[in-house]
Amino acid sequence: MIVSALLTSVGINFGLCVLFFTLYSILRKQPCNYDVYIPRLLAEGKSQRRGNFIFEQLLPSTGWVKRAWQITEEELLVSSGLDAVVFMRIFIFSLRVFCLAGIIGIFVLLPINCLGTQLAQFDIAELSSISLDLFTISNVNNGSNWLWAHFCAVYIVTGFVCYLLYYEYNYISSKRIEYFYSSKPQPHQFTVLVRSIPVVAGSSVSDSVENFFTEFYPSSYLSHMVVRRTNKIRGLIDKAKKLYKRVTALQSGHTKTKYGREGYLGLFGRKVDLVDHYEKKLEDLEENVRLEQSEASLAGEEIRAAFVSFKTRYAASTACHMQQSINPTRWVTEEAPEPHDVNWPFFSSSFLRRWFSKLAVVVVYILVTVLFLIPVVFVQGLTNLDQLELMFPFLKSILTLKFVSEVVTGYLPSLILHLFLKTVPPVMKFLSSIQGYISISQIEKSACNKMFWFTVWNIFFGNVLSGSVLNQISIILDPENIPSKLAVAVPAQASFFIAYVVTTGWTSTSTELFRMFPLICSLITNPCGGDKDDELEVPRPPYHRDIPKILFFGLLGITYFFLAPLILPFLLVYFCLGYIIYRNQFLNVYSPGYETAGKFWPIVHNSMIFALVLMHAIAIGIFTLKKLSIASTLTFPLPVFTLIFNEYCRKRFLPNFVAYSAESLIKKDRGDIHDASMEEFFESLVTAYQDPALLPIQYSSHTDGRSTPLLGV
Amino acid sequence: MIVSALLTSVGINFGLCVLFFTLYSILRKQPCNYDVYIPRLLAEGKSQRRGNFIFEQLLPSTGWVKRAWQITEEELLVSSGLDAVVFMRIFIFSLRVFCLAGIIGIFVLLPINCLGTQLAQFDIAELSSISLDLFTISNVNNGSNWLWAHFCAVYIVTGFVCYLLYYEYNYISSKRIEYFYSSKPQPHQFTVLVRSIPVVAGSSVSDSVENFFTEFYPSSYLSHMVVRRTNKIRGLIDKAKKLYKRVTALQSGHTKTKYGREGYLGLFGRKVDLVDHYEKKLEDLEENVRLEQSEASLAGEEIRAAFVSFKTRYAASTACHMQQSINPTRWVTEEAPEPHDVNWPFFSSSFLRRWFSKLAVVVVYILVTVLFLIPVVFVQGLTNLDQLELMFPFLKSILTLKFVSEVVTGYLPSLILHLFLKTVPPVMKFLSSIQGYISISQIEKSACNKMFWFTVWNIFFGNVLSGSVLNQISIILDPENIPSKLAVAVPAQASFFIAYVVTTGWTSTSTELFRMFPLICSLITNPCGGDKDDELEVPRPPYHRDIPKILFFGLLGITYFFLAPLILPFLLVYFCLGYIIYRNQFLNVYSPGYETAGKFWPIVHNSMIFALVLMHAIAIGIFTLKKLSIASTLTFPLPVFTLIFNEYCRKRFLPNFVAYSAESLIKKDRGDIHDASMEEFFESLVTAYQDPALLPIQYSSHTDGRSTPLLGV
Repeated sequence: MIVSALLTSVGINFGLCVLFFTLYSILRKQPCNYDVYIPRLLAEGKSQRRGNFIFEQLLPSTGWVKRAWQITEEELLVSSGLDAVVFMRIFIFSLRVFCLAGIIGIFVLLPINCLGTQLAQFDIAELSSISLDLFTISNVNNGSNWLWAHFCAVYIVTGFVCYLLYYEYNYISSKRIEYFYSSKPQPHQFTVLVRSIPVVAGSSVSDSVENFFTEFYPSSYLSHMVVRRTNKIRGLIDKAKKLYKRVTALQSGHTKTKYGREGYLGLFGRKVDLVDHYEKKLEDLEENVRLEQSEASLAGEEIRAAFVSFKTRYAASTACHMQQSINPTRWVTEEAPEPHDVNWPFFSSSFLRRWFSKLAVVVVYILVTVLFLIPVVFVQGLTNLDQLELMFPFLKSILTLKFVSEVVTGYLPSLILHLFLKTVPPVMKFLSSIQGYISISQIEKSACNKMFWFTVWNIFFGNVLSGSVLNQISIILDPENIPSKLAVAVPAQASFFIAYVVTTGWTSTSTELFRMFPLICSLITNPCGGDKDDELEVPRPPYHRDIPKILFFGLLGITYFFLAPLILPFLLVYFCLGYIIYRNQFLNVYSPGYETAGKFWPIVHNSMIFALVLMHAIAIGIFTLKKLSIASTLTFPLPVFTLIFNEYCRKRFLPNFVAYSAESLIKKDRGDIHDASMEEFFESLVTAYQDPALLPIQYSSHTDGRSTPLLGV
Repeated sequence: MIVSALLTSVGINFGLCVLFFTLYSILRKQPCNYDVYIPRLLAEGKSQRRGNFIFEQLLPSTGWVKRAWQITEEELLVSSGLDAVVFMRIFIFSLRVFCLAGIIGIFVLLPINCLGTQLAQFDIAELSSISLDLFTISNVNNGSNWLWAHFCAVYIVTGFVCYLLYYEYNYISSKRIEYFYSSKPQPHQFTVLVRSIPVVAGSSVSDSVENFFTEFYPSSYLSHMVVRRTNKIRGLIDKAKKLYKRVTALQSGHTKTKYGREGYLGLFGRKVDLVDHYEKKLEDLEENVRLEQSEASLAGEEIRAAFVSFKTRYAASTACHMQQSINPTRWVTEEAPEPHDVNWPFFSSSFLRRWFSKLAVVVVYILVTVLFLIPVVFVQGLTNLDQLELMFPFLKSILTLKFVSEVVTGYLPSLILHLFLKTVPPVMKFLSSIQGYISISQIEKSACNKMFWFTVWNIFFGNVLSGSVLNQISIILDPENIPSKLAVAVPAQASFFIAYVVTTGWTSTSTELFRMFPLICSLITNPCGGDKDDELEVPRPPYHRDIPKILFFGLLGITYFFLAPLILPFLLVYFCLGYIIYRNQFLNVYSPGYETAGKFWPIVHNSMIFALVLMHAIAIGIFTLKKLSIASTLTFPLPVFTLIFNEYCRKRFLPNFVAYSAESLIKKDRGDIHDASMEEFFESLVTAYQDPALLPIQYSSHTDGRSTPLLGV
């Protein structure tokens, strides 16, 4: 790729960003878009839909940037929870790392690279047509002593990253404990989930649980709630919900659209009062639901799993840590998630079945990850003009046009990749959900991990190796030669990844701000709809989609900072954009669905360690390739020390992210002893883990015409 | 190697075995050898040293075989503990596996191998001079359908081994729980070891422990015992012990040897009464010890570690499972070992120091394992006559002698290897002891693991690969080609390993019975000594030395049974010998030093799984090499299923070997509530973990001339 192609790509994307920003600052002020851009404020009642038109609403403004900039971490913690704070810490961490790396890269390494003559003389006069490779380490002369600058940079940045990783782990760890100490009593702190409950013939799961825990935990056991099979009821409730929506739509649209709709629906039927008809149907459905619910309460529909609540947090934690039964595959305990975090639909109970589905998911995950390479290879082909002309000869005339060829090489490949990648997070989330996790937070955490490795394998290795040796996945089976092969392949893809940062990175953050898909959906369903309060669903922050993306850019930065320092300014822009935009989104759009209290951070830590070690492997290969084998040898201690550092962090901080210590649990329990509200809390705890599908529903209007649904109260 | 060489080797070793057996059955009846052959019976007072001579004592007899055969598992459990039972289960397991494998191997595979003509026609007339390779799979014709027999054998044996592994794991797991239920209250069940105790300035470790546990475990905390630095005292006590021995020797030998010794010692000194002189010295030393002991009781000599005892087993286990402090590197708890199992000399406390020494040990272990290859390569060279003649031309004339060449190829290599290996277990034990384990049992368990992998690497891979590609250790770095390389190299070494089983296996078990080294030591120190009761030390079973050896023979059997079935009869003889001999030794010689209640079994299980997967890898390679690639492909599921099976066993059984379940702990605690002797037990618990170096000592005779030492009471 040449400089002008990069500039084209930067130009297009910069334009897109500006466009999105402008549109956003205009559209968000239109009341009809409030539920796209500020659903959270609407739901919290902090903003009202006002109808009156003000001319200012059509002028772009930057007030939102200021507001997003001004909120403190404390405010973010209060409004969006610790997970949002951790999410923003990824940006702060990345900005810090790439500020230092950027200074070293741009002011030290870039001039050295340009001064080299290995590939070609750097000619400032023909700037726009020279290859981007001249800015990379490949242009430094073989055996040149200037390479020691790169060597030092690798050491300095590794040290700095490790220091920051330690600092952040420590910081978030203390935040997590602070959060625990300051939290109100919450049901999940007092509860464990028990699975694989053995049942003797003639007795129910409930009896079995009651007997076991009253026998072994007589002083601390409080209550339990057996999980029941409710898939059927859930289906019926969904139907009822839809019907209720239609009824209310008919009722509210009585004067305006009733006839039109009636006509349309009645084309092939008798003319009846549709509202009455649906009301009748709804009542039948509700009757059905009630029947099913009472049936589900019988022992036959019990799943061999139960939420067991204790009187203290310490007792719950003890039950969770200890192997309960002599047979370790029975009475398997784990921490209970928050009640609203439970993923009720996928509740399988048998130990063996869960274990096999886990194995199956691993296999499917590997297959998906490997098969995904096919479109990536295709996309990679597009960046190679010659190959394209060879494959599609009829394109030859078009491809000779300068602009077209620049778009093809600079922009199109990343865009296609980007669109393909859009479909992956939901797939990963689905895979995680059938893996046996019982809470949405665990599912998203697992999906987050899956997504990261998927991205690394497909985007990083897929692109790096496809140019040379992709067809043999066997490179991984030849670990000895990984550094030398990476050293050849990685710098060669520098320009692709610079373009990738600009296209995918910049554009994805600005579409995140602009919320393109929700906006389109909203425009289609409600061209400029009126009263939609009932249906307003505040979206949850898509951690499993966005964290791997941000981490991948971090990985790109760490691996490329000394190979192609030109990537750093673009990355810094990306992280700055992200920092502002996500703060704004947390403020206005997303409402936290659960609180893991920072359990996402270990994923961040691990991926950064991986990035460091990968960078070291490439450095070892590059220094050998550049005939400076002393530097290559001297780089060897780095990955070793990085891994030892990681091991230390695992020992020092990770346990705090898995469970709370006895010290904090007992202290917290003691603090509650004289709290008068605990009595009330324990009462609510007994029913906290009731399956929402088993709660009574009431949509039909035979008591009140506009009764609000009682579901999920 | 040709058949006659093997026969020579078998002949020599059979002769040696018969010799050892005969000598054993004669020598063990001589009273002066009682402390070599039946130290345990002596110590337990079941046998007395009788002086009167009976002629029968000079005739070999087989009564001991009958006695060893007759004891039941129950008796063994009572007399030598669960660890001995587990040890013997390895033999039972191996015998079962190799009976089936032997039947298949000898009656099905061996004829098939001999019928092949790939290497040469099998000629029964020239039996003694044909190569052993004709008995291996290498002689089956390429692409022959007879190979499907080998394929089926691999499947059948894998299935059978897995079934037996499951059965044994289940059996030993239930034995372990039974043992726990039937055990008397023991100090280590109620105690945890706490390390990395933080101390505020001006307070002692003891205060810190007291405060922490009375605050957080007010109802269950019983007492604690801080560990102190006692290396200096230990040195002094050792000196005092030696001096005491000398004094008693002088006193008892007063009439016989006093003058002789006095003359020898007094060559360059004044003539004084030596007994008085040493008595005086001993008193001084004891005074010194007492001074040091009172100094050690001060706070300054405290190590930041303590044994904390609780009132119930459940409370101790809880404290052990939970992270105690907010900082997970402080108040680190682990299960306490039995009081007499504690390895006092190596007691380092700091979290970081222990962690670094662990890392260092790993590095040293890898170095030792890799450097050990040098003698192995040398030994391997000896088996190759041509190479030997090339290296030492002057040997040519000797090596042409048939007998010499047979000894060199058939016997010498294994013997040298065997002698080298003798030095390894103590080294491994030392490495494990500085790794931070605090009990002898943990050290031996870890050394057992180290020894097994050491043996596999050096004996198996060292011999298999040295013939072809040893010099490149890089084969491990090329995992894709492992099966094909193994397929070439492993069958080629079949004859070496058959000889290895005969020499090392047979001879090592018979020397185990004969107790060559202790016998020699005893002969040197006490040509036919009289009263040695005071010094009699009953040896502990050397699990870390013998378990890896037995497991390695199991690995050899599993990997070679379908390649060279001829190995199986020799292995069966080995296991039969071992079964009888070790039962005899447990009965007469070894006294258990500790009781891990079967914690050695997971090592056995893992090594067998490794052997299976290795065998599958070789099978895949062999079938490809033999041009039967369908069989090769069809073998692929086997390692996968074996690993899944292993994973299941890890979940199903391993937790029971790590800790006891809440259910069993609570039940056991309840059983004690009405036990009157518990009061007494708790009193003894308070001082159970007193460092023996801090107990008062009394060797000198100023109270009583023949006082027995109070050490370790």
